[in-house]
Amino acid sequence: MTAACDIGEALRQPLILASASPRRAELLRQVGWEFEVVVSAAEEDGGADGEQASELVLRHSRAKALEVAARLPGRLVLGADTVVVRGTRILGKPDTEDEAREMLRALSGADHQVVTGVAFALGGEVLAEDAVATDVTFRELADAEIEAYVATGEPMDKAGAYGIQERGALIVRRLRGCYFNVVGLPVARVGEMLHELDRRVP
Amino acid sequence: MTAACDIGEALRQPLILASASPRRAELLRQVGWEFEVVVSAAEEDGGADGEQASELVLRHSRAKALEVAARLPGRLVLGADTVVVRGTRILGKPDTEDEAREMLRALSGADHQVVTGVAFALGGEVLAEDAVATDVTFRELADAEIEAYVATGEPMDKAGAYGIQERGALIVRRLRGCYFNVVGLPVARVGEMLHELDRRVP
Repeated sequence: MTAACDIGEALRQPLILASASPRRAELLRQVGWEFEVVVSAAEEDGGADGEQASELVLRHSRAKALEVAARLPGRLVLGADTVVVRGTRILGKPDTEDEAREMLRALSGADHQVVTGVAFALGGEVLAEDAVATDVTFRELADAEIEAYVATGEPMDKAGAYGIQERGALIVRRLRGCYFNVVGLPVARVGEMLHELDRRVP
Repeated sequence: MTAACDIGEALRQPLILASASPRRAELLRQVGWEFEVVVSAAEEDGGADGEQASELVLRHSRAKALEVAARLPGRLVLGADTVVVRGTRILGKPDTEDEAREMLRALSGADHQVVTGVAFALGGEVLAEDAVATDVTFRELADAEIEAYVATGEPMDKAGAYGIQERGALIVRRLRGCYFNVVGLPVARVGEMLHELDRRVP
């Protein structure tokens, strides 16, 4: 059990973001927090049979945060992972352009969920974690539109093969929940979790 | 009545954005459209007695688009206006820091609507217009948080005294509808309207 004074000490230093995602770093810059990026060596996988999306992203978030926290004693580390869920299917990042096309066809004119896990680690312990879901509705996409979108290269490094904060803005008809969760980090929830950690400090 | 071939001709040239808002320009850049900014001289007002928010933003959007379109014959001009609605009250941009504080207190821990009007004008005619509403829920804000937020200067040039695309991201618990509408322009809807205009061209 991490001592409260250790949490207090860690909170006085810049947060460590254990993510290679430029979008997550941009969101932390946007809200004006001090942070440093230390990319985690923890691997992502496609999930075990029957594993829920929220379990999967929490497992990845914990692994990323703990791997970096073990290397940086005394520092508070934030891990995160985002997937797209359509029905019972979990969509990560597409490996090929064909896979991107297929994902976009599966999401066209339909609802899906974006689920992001976040975990705060300090030393060998996870201090707080949560999974946040946002409902997203795509408009109907013509094949030519999918082709043009894949040709921009934008879908390739993104869960579900789209980036709402780029040209993907034209595809999303509406959403319900936290927008920033769809970008990759539910910043308002992360802010609340930091406040909760701060309240543990005497 | 504008001839279809005039619309076709206008659509082949960069769109004119009749707005001084850096956020609207940023959204058009994000989705990769060619455009030019020509700020409108049309004035905004607080609305007439009993005027609905959607009527107010459409009236402003039309006025902005028409004023610029009259100066630029043959060019397609997009006007837009955004307000925040809390109950029966319409909130525009705060004039003073005290007004910003008061607006943020009114929105704290509650739901409101963001309503954006958009209008396309060509010459002396409005070719298309729409008003889009997004529901937004703020978390509860302590007075000290409101004070710190107003001190950043961020609330001062924004309807409802917050910017969801900046530090305001930490205040918004969830939304329902188009996120970009809250930033100031419902880009997916604007894209659809452009497609509809394009379909009028033989």
